[in-house]
Amino acid sequence: MVPNRALVFVQSSRGVPVPREHVIVKEVGTFDIDAPPPEGTITTQTLYASLDPSMRLRMTPPEDSKVFTPYQPGELITSTILMKVLRVDQSVKDVKEGDVLRAYKPIQEYHIISGQDDIGSLDYIRDTEGIDLKVFPGPLGSPGLAACAALNEIGKPKKGETILVSAASGAVGQTVGQLAKHYGLTVLGIVGSDEKVNLIKDLGFDGAINYKKGNLVQQLRGLAPNGVDIFYDNVGGEILEAAIELMRDHGRIVNCGAASQYNLPFDKQYGIRNLLPVVSKSLTLRGFSSTPGDWVFGYSAEHREKMRELIKSSEVKPILSVTKELGKRPGALVELFRGDKTGKAVLDFCVS
Amino acid sequence: MVPNRALVFVQSSRGVPVPREHVIVKEVGTFDIDAPPPEGTITTQTLYASLDPSMRLRMTPPEDSKVFTPYQPGELITSTILMKVLRVDQSVKDVKEGDVLRAYKPIQEYHIISGQDDIGSLDYIRDTEGIDLKVFPGPLGSPGLAACAALNEIGKPKKGETILVSAASGAVGQTVGQLAKHYGLTVLGIVGSDEKVNLIKDLGFDGAINYKKGNLVQQLRGLAPNGVDIFYDNVGGEILEAAIELMRDHGRIVNCGAASQYNLPFDKQYGIRNLLPVVSKSLTLRGFSSTPGDWVFGYSAEHREKMRELIKSSEVKPILSVTKELGKRPGALVELFRGDKTGKAVLDFCVS
Repeated sequence: MVPNRALVFVQSSRGVPVPREHVIVKEVGTFDIDAPPPEGTITTQTLYASLDPSMRLRMTPPEDSKVFTPYQPGELITSTILMKVLRVDQSVKDVKEGDVLRAYKPIQEYHIISGQDDIGSLDYIRDTEGIDLKVFPGPLGSPGLAACAALNEIGKPKKGETILVSAASGAVGQTVGQLAKHYGLTVLGIVGSDEKVNLIKDLGFDGAINYKKGNLVQQLRGLAPNGVDIFYDNVGGEILEAAIELMRDHGRIVNCGAASQYNLPFDKQYGIRNLLPVVSKSLTLRGFSSTPGDWVFGYSAEHREKMRELIKSSEVKPILSVTKELGKRPGALVELFRGDKTGKAVLDFCVS
Repeated sequence: MVPNRALVFVQSSRGVPVPREHVIVKEVGTFDIDAPPPEGTITTQTLYASLDPSMRLRMTPPEDSKVFTPYQPGELITSTILMKVLRVDQSVKDVKEGDVLRAYKPIQEYHIISGQDDIGSLDYIRDTEGIDLKVFPGPLGSPGLAACAALNEIGKPKKGETILVSAASGAVGQTVGQLAKHYGLTVLGIVGSDEKVNLIKDLGFDGAINYKKGNLVQQLRGLAPNGVDIFYDNVGGEILEAAIELMRDHGRIVNCGAASQYNLPFDKQYGIRNLLPVVSKSLTLRGFSSTPGDWVFGYSAEHREKMRELIKSSEVKPILSVTKELGKRPGALVELFRGDKTGKAVLDFCVS
């Protein structure tokens, strides 16, 4: 018997959550790794878990929560996790021990996956083609799909155009930027530290600013003196407002997220005042949410194929921020919410 | 010789302009109606002038003016005007005395139109098909084209859907609403008086609220308990923010204008805080500006034909607010900016 530890929600917070006060690692049961799985199930051990800015939205007090169902105190925090199949009940077909499985599940060390999940048709990663498994929750997972699908469908990139990306070193941003570079665009990024500026320039970004340093509007004007055609926005707020001023006529703004506002109640949200240029410059702002069955998933095959090729050829270089220590998991999540992570945040469960 | 009087810009204003203080009627010259026109020109007498909310944008102080070139003190105020051709120089082809011409010109009583304007290819209204000429700057003019083009291209209306229209008795709003009704949508309107509520219900709107009466969000919830698919917005600000809350998944917002913000400097503009539902509900917001050559003009033929048919069959009933007295012209413009006009605002120059 081994402990089965999970990332657990303690209580909601109005500001930036605090490790242990709002999120903890806790033993939620024990697990017998030698026991045969119950009938019709498989048992799995978690390898990696994806940490994403949107996870903040379920940690909001119920009265402020307009978007997602808020967590109840004591509820397990859920995300995309990669699991190794430990044991397979003989009644289960098409799955074998050692298979790697990706699913949206509570972040805990061991799972018993039951028939309800339609085990055989879950998302198995059987050939990594030599790509690091940790990349699968990032550029090869939902953030990568969001990057690929929305850049195409909403951004409508054309060779020679200029794109600006916010949270440009994050899971979505780094993928958007490198993909846009591959399409022949001039790619500019907004990030929150000088370290990140250097990092994304190394990835091939043509220019970048640290928004925390000096006047935002002036910095952006210097970065894109001729304006931008596409703004792929992950942060919202003041940065979105400033970017609207940079947009060229008929520009497209992809509203992928508003991470700068996730820690704020509605009445404290930053109000975007420049609707007039949206009208006068004929801009499009379009949000999207990756709900199963939605248009985003129409890009799944294209995304998977293209992204694997680009990663194998090193045209796209995934930047990860990996947390290995159990005790640091709540902190890793909070650092992500605060914008202090550099690269796609992943928890590594250190399973060999 | 007769006086040639015009609507003249006096000085910019930060709040709602005041007649005489910011706009006056002034004699800007004299005009000899019996003199033959200079070589290569035609002379015209103004019949009607269109007053539109966007005219406010050029009356903003230069330092606040982000969208249009601000007027200089003493400059003539420009709009779409309908003119009757008085005399035609013999060198000018394809135009005859008595023709009615629509053009974007200073609002003054007489014009000499020169060859620079490519006189022969200007917009002549030669067959009104029995429709009142005053309707031509409204549902049959730019506001009508905006209504028709953006409702189709951005709103993508489908029979059975619900549309909400702000400034619903205005030139654009009344046309959008009646057109959407013709397409088989449930049509709801937001207006600024009980009189306007009754008026648009008479036009066929299925429901309407007076936004000045009681809590806006509560009123809207009562008006559209099942949400709306399309919001055709002419006013921006608080009403746009409230309407975003009503949008159904994949809803479309047409940003035609932001009249509620035109009298305010940038730092006083109402900030739209609810970007999160734009993301989570996969909403599209799209502005447009009718710049010559833009996609809006691709709808010109369809708009002209459809709208004439609908007006002739009384399926679309134009509601006009006509000002006849010379001295009331500045006041009419200001009332429009204040939202006090009911129907499409037109100046009638009382030329028989």
